[in-house]
Amino acid sequence: MLRYLDAGESHGKCLVAILEGMPAGVKIDEKFINNELARRLKGYGRSDRAKSIEEDKIEILSGVRKGITLASPIAIRIENKDFKIDTLEKVTKPRPGHADLAGALKYNQKDIRNILERASARETASRVAIGAICKLFLSEFNVRILSHVINIGGVEAHTGGLSFEEIQEKIARSSLNCADKTAEKLMIEEINKIKQAKDTIGGSFEIITEGVTAGLGSHVHYDRKLDGRLAGGLMSIQAIKGVEIGLGFEVAKKSGSQVHDQIYYDKRGGFYYKTNNAGGIEGGMTNGNPIIIKCAMKPIPTLMSPMDSVDIETKRSFKAQIERSDVIAVPAAGVVAEGHVAYELARAYLEKFGGDSLEETKRNFASYTKQLKEF
Amino acid sequence: MLRYLDAGESHGKCLVAILEGMPAGVKIDEKFINNELARRLKGYGRSDRAKSIEEDKIEILSGVRKGITLASPIAIRIENKDFKIDTLEKVTKPRPGHADLAGALKYNQKDIRNILERASARETASRVAIGAICKLFLSEFNVRILSHVINIGGVEAHTGGLSFEEIQEKIARSSLNCADKTAEKLMIEEINKIKQAKDTIGGSFEIITEGVTAGLGSHVHYDRKLDGRLAGGLMSIQAIKGVEIGLGFEVAKKSGSQVHDQIYYDKRGGFYYKTNNAGGIEGGMTNGNPIIIKCAMKPIPTLMSPMDSVDIETKRSFKAQIERSDVIAVPAAGVVAEGHVAYELARAYLEKFGGDSLEETKRNFASYTKQLKEF
Amino acid sequence: MLRYLDAGESHGKCLVAILEGMPAGVKIDEKFINNELARRLKGYGRSDRAKSIEEDKIEILSGVRKGITLASPIAIRIENKDFKIDTLEKVTKPRPGHADLAGALKYNQKDIRNILERASARETASRVAIGAICKLFLSEFNVRILSHVINIGGVEAHTGGLSFEEIQEKIARSSLNCADKTAEKLMIEEINKIKQAKDTIGGSFEIITEGVTAGLGSHVHYDRKLDGRLAGGLMSIQAIKGVEIGLGFEVAKKSGSQVHDQIYYDKRGGFYYKTNNAGGIEGGMTNGNPIIIKCAMKPIPTLMSPMDSVDIETKRSFKAQIERSDVIAVPAAGVVAEGHVAYELARAYLEKFGGDSLEETKRNFASYTKQLKEF
Amino acid sequence: MLRYLDAGESHGKCLVAILEGMPAGVKIDEKFINNELARRLKGYGRSDRAKSIEEDKIEILSGVRKGITLASPIAIRIENKDFKIDTLEKVTKPRPGHADLAGALKYNQKDIRNILERASARETASRVAIGAICKLFLSEFNVRILSHVINIGGVEAHTGGLSFEEIQEKIARSSLNCADKTAEKLMIEEINKIKQAKDTIGGSFEIITEGVTAGLGSHVHYDRKLDGRLAGGLMSIQAIKGVEIGLGFEVAKKSGSQVHDQIYYDKRGGFYYKTNNAGGIEGGMTNGNPIIIKCAMKPIPTLMSPMDSVDIETKRSFKAQIERSDVIAVPAAGVVAEGHVAYELARAYLEKFGGDSLEETKRNFASYTKQLKEF
Repeated sequence: MLRYLDAGESHGKCLVAILEGMPAGVKIDEKFINNELARRLKGYGRSDRAKSIEEDKIEILSGVRKGITLASPIAIRIENKDFKIDTLEKVTKPRPGHADLAGALKYNQKDIRNILERASARETASRVAIGAICKLFLSEFNVRILSHVINIGGVEAHTGGLSFEEIQEKIARSSLNCADKTAEKLMIEEINKIKQAKDTIGGSFEIITEGVTAGLGSHVHYDRKLDGRLAGGLMSIQAIKGVEIGLGFEVAKKSGSQVHDQIYYDKRGGFYYKTNNAGGIEGGMTNGNPIIIKCAMKPIPTLMSPMDSVDIETKRSFKAQIERSDVIAVPAAGVVAEGHVAYELARAYLEKFGGDSLEETKRNFASYTKQLKEF
Repeated sequence: MLRYLDAGESHGKCLVAILEGMPAGVKIDEKFINNELARRLKGYGRSDRAKSIEEDKIEILSGVRKGITLASPIAIRIENKDFKIDTLEKVTKPRPGHADLAGALKYNQKDIRNILERASARETASRVAIGAICKLFLSEFNVRILSHVINIGGVEAHTGGLSFEEIQEKIARSSLNCADKTAEKLMIEEINKIKQAKDTIGGSFEIITEGVTAGLGSHVHYDRKLDGRLAGGLMSIQAIKGVEIGLGFEVAKKSGSQVHDQIYYDKRGGFYYKTNNAGGIEGGMTNGNPIIIKCAMKPIPTLMSPMDSVDIETKRSFKAQIERSDVIAVPAAGVVAEGHVAYELARAYLEKFGGDSLEETKRNFASYTKQLKEF
Repeated sequence: MLRYLDAGESHGKCLVAILEGMPAGVKIDEKFINNELARRLKGYGRSDRAKSIEEDKIEILSGVRKGITLASPIAIRIENKDFKIDTLEKVTKPRPGHADLAGALKYNQKDIRNILERASARETASRVAIGAICKLFLSEFNVRILSHVINIGGVEAHTGGLSFEEIQEKIARSSLNCADKTAEKLMIEEINKIKQAKDTIGGSFEIITEGVTAGLGSHVHYDRKLDGRLAGGLMSIQAIKGVEIGLGFEVAKKSGSQVHDQIYYDKRGGFYYKTNNAGGIEGGMTNGNPIIIKCAMKPIPTLMSPMDSVDIETKRSFKAQIERSDVIAVPAAGVVAEGHVAYELARAYLEKFGGDSLEETKRNFASYTKQLKEF
Repeated sequence: MLRYLDAGESHGKCLVAILEGMPAGVKIDEKFINNELARRLKGYGRSDRAKSIEEDKIEILSGVRKGITLASPIAIRIENKDFKIDTLEKVTKPRPGHADLAGALKYNQKDIRNILERASARETASRVAIGAICKLFLSEFNVRILSHVINIGGVEAHTGGLSFEEIQEKIARSSLNCADKTAEKLMIEEINKIKQAKDTIGGSFEIITEGVTAGLGSHVHYDRKLDGRLAGGLMSIQAIKGVEIGLGFEVAKKSGSQVHDQIYYDKRGGFYYKTNNAGGIEGGMTNGNPIIIKCAMKPIPTLMSPMDSVDIETKRSFKAQIERSDVIAVPAAGVVAEGHVAYELARAYLEKFGGDSLEETKRNFASYTKQLKEF
């Protein structure tokens, strides 16, 4: 079963992750992985610092020989350009909206740096790299994943009716990873306004997964349901406060006849649906439709306008404030979320199809595909 | 570490669950557990069948002696009054909105009964029972959990400003587990309308957890973040399609200064917040505020009005329809969700405080509480 | 991935276990399972009480319909004929060789009954039942498992050169599950002597697994090595103090050229070995040879001759003694060990071959077998 | 809960491991860790290559700041001086006694290098480093661990009656990590003889753990029994074929009255035993006695005398042979085994006592120690 651990602090030497359980024979395209890492740093509204410091490159330390996976654990490293954790000064002022205070209390740390270094979203670079490797694996099964921004500060993008390819094409030309040009303009205006007000802003994004086979996940036990696994990982991403699958909270307002996807059959293609309100998952299993997930991201908590807080040492109130910061990072969060979805899907493929070599996994998959056709 | 497996089909002999990892010395009040099971069956809009057949009673099979836990695995059983799985006829007609088709394809089953028996929400009785045991454990740490309905078919309840106790009091007198009497009336009207239209309807509910200590969960690794664990389990509950923590999707529309909870200090009570937009979790950890979670539930997919589907044997289209059904089960889903929250919190307490006897866990908790006070 | 939890005390209502992860379509032969349970109670030297009270029958509570697995969790129950845990008197006198004292200290229990009820070997009936279900699964892949007694009180059985079938045949006619008739006679004499001396005696047994495919387990990560998984589970069986794979401790005395199995090739059968010193596992993986494991079991600690101990309440010394007891239970322990081996092998098959229906798992297995042939 | 993943091939860039779950506040003494790594390379009978190439140094990549753990995952790296995996030639000749053939078949690899690089015992350096960090943690609880060689090629060391300190002292002056000087001489003679015969030789070692508290592990569930966990990890170490706890296979030859440790009480020290035949573990739990484990290691399979094997490409027989090799590595295997024991014990302490900072874990431990005294 696929699993990973990741490590690394924001100003430590590097990020490290170990991915265990990938079969032998998967081609590892480092350029693709680095491109994914670059996508995580893009997006209108990022500070210059983010861009200049991070420019991440993956270094593969194990598990790959001559560009092909060996089935042994894949260790990766992403260097921090800003390695100075041991010399950075003590922090005693917790920032609202951060892990700072809760972490200091839990771990009994008087120096909040010991918390914030790991709580930082810097860690998400590891998730993107792990996700990129999983995407390379999934591409062998014709699975494709994208994310796009659908709301920033209340400005909604309208993308209903667009195909996967159309969205892909439109976001390629957007500085906000947004497929609705009109909305994007308004979003940028909103961002500029917020920036001038020395504030930050949140948003939401949608993840679409195409080409996933029916029958991943399971209905038989709560912790094997794919919707639960996807939502759990996505909610664990820094600043994510909401996750919806398919219609999401819209279902609360609708009747059954408006919500449930009716079933049709076609001799060549087999069973199909004309709608996808379920977002591709029913009973904890993929139903063959694209998986559609939405996530909400809170505004970046590093504020340029001051907020009330209390020094943990002196217990005196102060105004939490910083000079520069990203105004928004929703497009980046979308890239991180794609990574998690890729990881969970790769796990689901390997659970269902087994296999120690890519050849074996694909062979088992092919015979299942045949079973589906002949069902 | 606390864990459980649960088993049982809708028309099988019984439901069974094994909870492993509970310390010795916890008083098991069966009456309380049965009351929780009863709460799961209540709520305006349930069919009479649900009420008459289920009247669940827990039978404790192991792990408890003279009403006190032994630290050995706790096995529970809930009988099915309707045991006839072996004689029930074959099902070849998948119902839209159910696990039926995806499950038949995945497991290669020509008789959909082999899927629907386990996919049924009957399973959630186990979750409620497991959750009830966890609530008994949590009550030793002064943790209280409630759920209340906040939206049905678009009718919103307004409960802003109500305290935990006030909500508790109001829902005690509501047939819909709703704390807003005016909204409740409109909800019931909506339900009646929908029932007459032979349709079903969804809704959403909120879970509030009071008294949770700061410092549960962790920021250090993605799968230890408490928000992720809570969301994962909640999304795995049948028919849940959205999960929000704190402001949830509202954060997409707001600026940082409107969202982040500012920090204050009081000599006697220590650090505190005046707002709780984060819903009690920052950086994957509890911050001492109540945990606030919202979930959206899709309409019950068993329809009294016909929907299109296809027989898996003949491949002929048919109209999926049933005679009687619940119109809505949102209050019940709230009770199930409480159960999962209780389970995850009990796990989090045991992870942080260890302990093989309740006495030991409480002793460790008390010394941590002292640490927090002296921080 | 296959997993299970089991529950139940020695004088509680029943034993319960839930096995999660078995594919759909496996025939569950209850008679076979009951026969395995009966095998656990046999063997020269057992007390009459064991035989009369236990006569175990499995009750399948879920996961099976019309005798076929559904892929949902399989819950089983084995009744205790002797249910009286709530009325049994307090125990304050720990027995040497038992979990009594360590458990009382760990769980802070003044009544040792709260420990001994679960620590009892009664629990192993669950393991045998779980193992029996796994054997039914494995039989679909032509895997066969037996255990036989090779040493009791220093009397060694000589079975070198006997085939699987020959051993099977010989133990069928032995009251000690021993394939060497001469040794068996001496063992029985030894047991009689020990019984008269009001003492107990230990022994060792060998588990042989035939028909296992090459390539189960893995060399890539320590916790995926099959030898480790097998040894871990076996050592966790009550009273087991030693586990050997293949030559075991004999390897300490030999040179490399005497130990390593040389490799040969045959056009029809592929690669093969003429020896099996490795016991079928190299680098944490099966190599196609039978898996050979030996386990040592300490004498039953319930003594008919008194031993020194201390009352945990009064702190006064006393002589621990009981009236009646088994003199030896090594054949039974072998049956329990078979169960664990079956469980771990079933897990290993499912990890490698995946599959949600037996049909799918077998299809994947067949295509791997073809791959091996064409290698 | 403590866990780790490790990665790295024998001729890859480096070994990497991530240890997750260590509390904050543990002092990380790199010199100690490097000393442990050096101990792994020592021992009479090692080839010069091993010594010259390996000289391992740990590099801590994360989880530690100013020499103190942060509670975030600890990533470590050990460089390979011999990094050339991508240019090394194809291997088609499987070596008897290695993972070579089983691995090639399982992973469908025509180049055995893709298997042997990870199967190599080079990986055990990671285990030693992880174990060393765990020893630093355990030293805060006064736990000490040693290993010493007790048998090489049939020559037994006699160490009965020696204290932990005496053994420690004697092995400090031994080139074979052996506490019996007379036996050591004979062992060296045996090694020299074997070396001249161009063969290799196995042996066995004992691990002794002092200062472990009573009540680690548990009797309540098979996978929580400490003897099972220890044995599982030890059997997964390369070349280990047998594991014994306490008397081990000796129990098969003895009567109950000779085996079970009688219980005594002393006002100041509490309960104690005069013997330790159980090896410190009863019912899956520590009983306060030292933990005593023995492991058997097979001869190193890299032979200087030729053995029969078959080329996987040509299917032709050949004589497997190599020029130079270690003759024996039993002392090194003992060091690796200590590492695993340290890891499992650190896990057991953290499971029982919880805690996010060393201060908290120690505080909980102290209050348990008081509970034991007052029992």
